Amino acid sequence: MIIGILGGGQLARMMALAGYPLGLRFRVLDPAPDACTGHLAEHIQAEFDDPAALRKLARGCDVVTYEFENVPAGALEQLEGTVPLYPPPAALRYSQDRLREKELFGRLDIPTPNHKPVDSRDGLEAAVAEVGLPGVLKTRRLGYDGKGQTVLRKNADLDPAWEQLGAHALIYEALIPFERELSIIAVRGRNGKSAYYPVPENSHCNGILRESRVCPGDPMQQPAEEYAQRLLDELNYVGVLTLELFQLNGQLLANEFAPRVHNSGHWSIEGAETSQFENHLRALMGLPLGKTTPLGHIAMVNFIGHLPGTAEVLACAGTHFHGYGKPERAGRKVGHGTIRASTVEKLQTELERLKKLAMPE
Amino acid sequence: MIIGILGGGQLARMMALAGYPLGLRFRVLDPAPDACTGHLAEHIQAEFDDPAALRKLARGCDVVTYEFENVPAGALEQLEGTVPLYPPPAALRYSQDRLREKELFGRLDIPTPNHKPVDSRDGLEAAVAEVGLPGVLKTRRLGYDGKGQTVLRKNADLDPAWEQLGAHALIYEALIPFERELSIIAVRGRNGKSAYYPVPENSHCNGILRESRVCPGDPMQQPAEEYAQRLLDELNYVGVLTLELFQLNGQLLANEFAPRVHNSGHWSIEGAETSQFENHLRALMGLPLGKTTPLGHIAMVNFIGHLPGTAEVLACAGTHFHGYGKPERAGRKVGHGTIRASTVEKLQTELERLKKLAMPE
Repeated sequence: MIIGILGGGQLARMMALAGYPLGLRFRVLDPAPDACTGHLAEHIQAEFDDPAALRKLARGCDVVTYEFENVPAGALEQLEGTVPLYPPPAALRYSQDRLREKELFGRLDIPTPNHKPVDSRDGLEAAVAEVGLPGVLKTRRLGYDGKGQTVLRKNADLDPAWEQLGAHALIYEALIPFERELSIIAVRGRNGKSAYYPVPENSHCNGILRESRVCPGDPMQQPAEEYAQRLLDELNYVGVLTLELFQLNGQLLANEFAPRVHNSGHWSIEGAETSQFENHLRALMGLPLGKTTPLGHIAMVNFIGHLPGTAEVLACAGTHFHGYGKPERAGRKVGHGTIRASTVEKLQTELERLKKLAMPE
Repeated sequence: MIIGILGGGQLARMMALAGYPLGLRFRVLDPAPDACTGHLAEHIQAEFDDPAALRKLARGCDVVTYEFENVPAGALEQLEGTVPLYPPPAALRYSQDRLREKELFGRLDIPTPNHKPVDSRDGLEAAVAEVGLPGVLKTRRLGYDGKGQTVLRKNADLDPAWEQLGAHALIYEALIPFERELSIIAVRGRNGKSAYYPVPENSHCNGILRESRVCPGDPMQQPAEEYAQRLLDELNYVGVLTLELFQLNGQLLANEFAPRVHNSGHWSIEGAETSQFENHLRALMGLPLGKTTPLGHIAMVNFIGHLPGTAEVLACAGTHFHGYGKPERAGRKVGHGTIRASTVEKLQTELERLKKLAMPE
């Protein structure tokens, strides 16, 4: 069986590493000549909306999936109906538009921050009047890792924000003074059965995930699972879906969902009975889902812009190294480390060491 | 960093899967056009002693290793001195010759079954007279998985055995009525530090490993480690070394060693804190070795000649599937399954299920 993947970055790479033992083979479509999955899978080097390349991908593959949200609409249309395509494109279309995504959350009674669409400078004024300050003005489409958004704290911020983003369709959301950021990694098989990983608590910096720490027995696990399940069932979902959540006053608010494997689930490679990557593939193939039970106390730290020395990282007890085979560049995710420890105290000690290595400044 | 591997079968494949997260890349030399590591690494398709191919391998790689014992002497000679080559070729040369291997065991006070070299029909007579019956007549070189050997139970077996094997240099060994077959997977880094996995108990059928079951706290662990350490230190070893042992009357006898990752260590992929494949690579690269602690109760079952259905295998709780991407053929290792269970009872239940799937007859 051959799995096609739109995108050949680190998520596709880790998917392939998880899938070879299942006897699968991989073919990725990615315009970058040095796409890091290309080291270990067939690589079709072409634009994502190149019709000939998409035909080549679809013809050779049993299932096609994707590792990023911003798959061009034309590519989806061309692929649909020619090859099994999971997760379902409907999920992708919701996640590509922050307004439609929030409307979906609303229909499913999943609480969200207050928000208003913004289509004009007057509309921005009205949205701020209704939602209040501080808030975040975001492009409805094509944002990721904090890109395409700006925080408004006072009325004087409206003009520069509009100047920066006014050319796009926008949404204005209340800025949530959250106690914690959580995410839930959920997976649903072709037969409708689903499974949920224990929620990690996530820390971001400049809009980029820095750290995920798994919280078995977290009191927010149950509501997080309920919200994720509503999405999975509504979308007749197949594969891994990630729902990002804010916790405020003991309640969860949905920030956004990603119809794919997710950085905040990388800990599952060594930290869970079955990794998110393997379970995503099992779902796509119609195979039984694997257990999501954590194996001890687990945390993950991203390596951003800079890859620490392998020897230094591996000298931290219980730490597993992941380099993505990508050149270093400021703000770029180039690897991560996962710590598996037998006690919370050991986890804390190794986590401090690993964070120092990851962020030497 | 690029690692070159002589051989592109399942051992090289699992090495590559373990090494990509370390940021390594892989290049294999293998004459088979469908060598299964070729799906996920650069493949130089040529004979193992092809000088041009060996030059190509050495030129592009930072370290070269191998996945099988029978590397031609000429290939070793060509590679030595042009590229770091681990484990050390001296270890390979001992393991290629059962007589020299046994002599090495003897020098290191590692007990072995009684044995005698056999160079003639008269010599066979003398060896049987000295060692006794039953015994095993083996070629000194190029044997694996029970090939190149035959059991002698009575004097009438000598003639047919000589007819079958007399063209080769031979060794005659006492057939050991062992209580158990064990192996120890040992690893030694460039700095001389070593680590040992918990010994598995192994079951063979027709000379091929069928099942390995890890025995944490086994009373034979300590003598097994001592014998392995003598080999590691004597050979100034770098990488994984496997020592196969018979247990008889509470004592260990060394059968043979393999200067490489080993089938009886495959359980370590999911079953140990660090797999044998990752630790082999860590040793080669001069990186700190990872912990060898087992994660629960672990067993591995080989899939020989026939790959059971992925869905059926994955339906066994805690079972991990490994298909090697090789066509099925009688007697060929085409995959394995590893069970990680929280109790001995659960392990036993799932092991019975998995063995039925592996051997449907």
